Amino acid sequence: MKTETARVINEEIIGELRNISGNDWVVSDMSQMESYLYDETELAVRPVAADGCVVVKPGTAEEVSGIVKLANEYKIPVVPRGGGTGLCGAAIPTKSSIVVSLERLNKLVEFDNKNIMITVEAGVTLEGLLEMLKEHDKLFFPVHPGDEGAQIGGMVVENAGGVRAVKHGIMRNHIKGVEVVLPTGELVTLGGKLIKNNMGYDLLHMMIGSEGTLGIVTKVTLKLYAKNPNIGTLLVSFNTTEEASDIVPKILQDGITPLAIEYMDREVALESAEHIGQAYPATEGSVDLMFILDEATEDELYEKCERIVGMCEENGAVDSLIAESTKEQRALLEIRSNVYTAYKENIADALDIAVPSGSVPDMLKDISAIAKKYNTISPAVGHIADGNVHNFLMLDNGEIPEYLDDMRNEMYDAAISYGGTVTAEHGTGKTRKRHMEQQYSAREIEIMQNIKKAFDPNGIFNPGTIVD
Amino acid sequence: MKTETARVINEEIIGELRNISGNDWVVSDMSQMESYLYDETELAVRPVAADGCVVVKPGTAEEVSGIVKLANEYKIPVVPRGGGTGLCGAAIPTKSSIVVSLERLNKLVEFDNKNIMITVEAGVTLEGLLEMLKEHDKLFFPVHPGDEGAQIGGMVVENAGGVRAVKHGIMRNHIKGVEVVLPTGELVTLGGKLIKNNMGYDLLHMMIGSEGTLGIVTKVTLKLYAKNPNIGTLLVSFNTTEEASDIVPKILQDGITPLAIEYMDREVALESAEHIGQAYPATEGSVDLMFILDEATEDELYEKCERIVGMCEENGAVDSLIAESTKEQRALLEIRSNVYTAYKENIADALDIAVPSGSVPDMLKDISAIAKKYNTISPAVGHIADGNVHNFLMLDNGEIPEYLDDMRNEMYDAAISYGGTVTAEHGTGKTRKRHMEQQYSAREIEIMQNIKKAFDPNGIFNPGTIVD
Repeated sequence: MKTETARVINEEIIGELRNISGNDWVVSDMSQMESYLYDETELAVRPVAADGCVVVKPGTAEEVSGIVKLANEYKIPVVPRGGGTGLCGAAIPTKSSIVVSLERLNKLVEFDNKNIMITVEAGVTLEGLLEMLKEHDKLFFPVHPGDEGAQIGGMVVENAGGVRAVKHGIMRNHIKGVEVVLPTGELVTLGGKLIKNNMGYDLLHMMIGSEGTLGIVTKVTLKLYAKNPNIGTLLVSFNTTEEASDIVPKILQDGITPLAIEYMDREVALESAEHIGQAYPATEGSVDLMFILDEATEDELYEKCERIVGMCEENGAVDSLIAESTKEQRALLEIRSNVYTAYKENIADALDIAVPSGSVPDMLKDISAIAKKYNTISPAVGHIADGNVHNFLMLDNGEIPEYLDDMRNEMYDAAISYGGTVTAEHGTGKTRKRHMEQQYSAREIEIMQNIKKAFDPNGIFNPGTIVD
Repeated sequence: MKTETARVINEEIIGELRNISGNDWVVSDMSQMESYLYDETELAVRPVAADGCVVVKPGTAEEVSGIVKLANEYKIPVVPRGGGTGLCGAAIPTKSSIVVSLERLNKLVEFDNKNIMITVEAGVTLEGLLEMLKEHDKLFFPVHPGDEGAQIGGMVVENAGGVRAVKHGIMRNHIKGVEVVLPTGELVTLGGKLIKNNMGYDLLHMMIGSEGTLGIVTKVTLKLYAKNPNIGTLLVSFNTTEEASDIVPKILQDGITPLAIEYMDREVALESAEHIGQAYPATEGSVDLMFILDEATEDELYEKCERIVGMCEENGAVDSLIAESTKEQRALLEIRSNVYTAYKENIADALDIAVPSGSVPDMLKDISAIAKKYNTISPAVGHIADGNVHNFLMLDNGEIPEYLDDMRNEMYDAAISYGGTVTAEHGTGKTRKRHMEQQYSAREIEIMQNIKKAFDPNGIFNPGTIVD
């Protein structure tokens, strides 16, 4: 990429940015921009932000376009910024950059009742979207990656996932159109309110998951779905990971598609429950599956819960528990949600491997064995029905262990040997970029580099992310 | 693209192809390759195949790789060929080309019960796939574009759609992995048995819908789903297109997701029924919606049919009919399926526009008005819930009318003005390529050209398709 002639971000450039977005929306004092320089990546592996950045908060897509045209002319790096909830350092400017925060693009554009879609500006948070949908109580948007501070634009370019992928898939399945500023400054719309579109190459699907390297999303059209109002949570205990894993495809093949199927090691669950001062309801067995179901009627909900319990019992389940009240359900979900916080202080890195779901038991065994080899543990939870395992690499007495890289590489190699991937939903970003060669051939990476150049000839968008 | 130094397909090249795939699998006599040179595109708009082609029928992906490496070295065009059921001329070699037929790659690779996926070679037909699935009677593959002679590889690169997109979406939603030979000859696997994968740019999604311009698919992994065994068909008649159209989002928002919702003008339906010598069961009203439902239980099926009828009646429906027996259902489906054959002899072109589904009534009105302006008619049917309208441009006394291009352009402009697309599911290919500028900006097309170069630096794969 040609960055030889890149200009530094001097007073003249800052002045031009002020002309575009107004004085109040340009922050050039480093002491005032700390909160715009980092994301939620583990401290121990988080990249360091570069000096000499400037933060701009444009109020319109046209302003974004103006900023990008300026940056492209002067070959200045541009780092788009959403809610800062990312987990791969994609939003961290590791070169002196213009950080473009989408926070002011936070409005509802259109709720389209006829097409059952909603269009929002990219800076609307997931919380904001859910708020907008409250008055349309028959409809819902299914993707929920956990942190409601995530912005919709960020969820598009990170192709966010979450626990509900079993039934509803990931962001990619629900994004119908985006308005985007290309790295050369043009404002274009990719896709639309369309279920089918085969004209040309699908640039919309290239933009999804592109992590701010191919464009800045300014507007998003999402498909909405009829809400199933009856929610139930089911906790089923098994003695072995294999038994728990084996039941999953049987349930799905029987025509039951839960919203979520989560896997938890018992010791992980107990740690989390203790952390938030709750009693964990399961005592038999050593691993648990948590099923969340949403069904059209109460009868269907109970009938499906009963069928799941019946099938689990035939498959070796030793205990089961249906959380009927909202309170009981919330208690269980909190234990699952707090697994991360329970370990957080001692985590060096949190992995995001996915393997074919049938290979989860083997992958979990490999994770344990590899950790043991380094005299450590690696607590794991997983979205078991979609093969996505989250395991933690622990600090060693508060320090980053020397073996961290070697251990992580072994785990990645194991995942790849099952036909898996280094990152299921958290993204490549800046932290996993160096593992691209582990997963992909030289020619595949070369094609990705060419695609980057196809959109961004001057290589100004989010350098150091995914590919250079 | 550099084609200056391209070699003609001479005896030496043919000899090398025979060395790769064996004597029996190379056809160089033009008189014997007619069936490999065309697809199902309307005769009146179908491109003419070039002279000097050679057809190769490789038996393995490695042979495909060998053929492509040879072609890339000598800069000879390569046209991959599936079942030849395409509707955009993508499989027609308009330059002297090596036509690579995938027909011998027709084997089941793996039925994976744990991951609920099936892997087949690319040359397996849809009919073959359905046959393979017969012994797994709880599972099914949802996409059905109509012609079961289509090969799975072709369905991948054409991102096939069909009537069932309402409930199950299109090919893109169900393709988890492909093995593909890149235009530079490397054999790679994109994706895998994975529900989530955010490592790098998603080359799998770039390959889907790429119409043989970015790679030759040799193997495909598809997600399967639990089958709902209770099928019902419902025909509901309305007086106006608006009434019929308005009910669609109401039904979907009420939590009913039919397998298909088809729209038919009454005159079109009568024409089709007469063509196959059947009586059309509806007499009241002037337009019909045909709903196909698949539900887990008979009770659910009847309950949902009743709810649909109730909602339609509230919305102005004048008649309704539930086809209960398989025979009644088949009769209705045959009328819908034969709309095309009823008009076929008089068709100059069949369009594949999609608009936001709420804009279908306006689009249908525009189609009628534009046709009327040219003193012709343009019979239309539509996958109304996904906005995909198929309308026919008629011959004028057996001749291609002079106004064909103008009329078609007006219809495309109308579709685009609603945020629609020139082609929903039939593909850009060679016939719609010249309309790319109507739908996309110069920069978007330039990016697509760059993407083409990213995969295919010598421009040898399916030249003249999508972009040059």
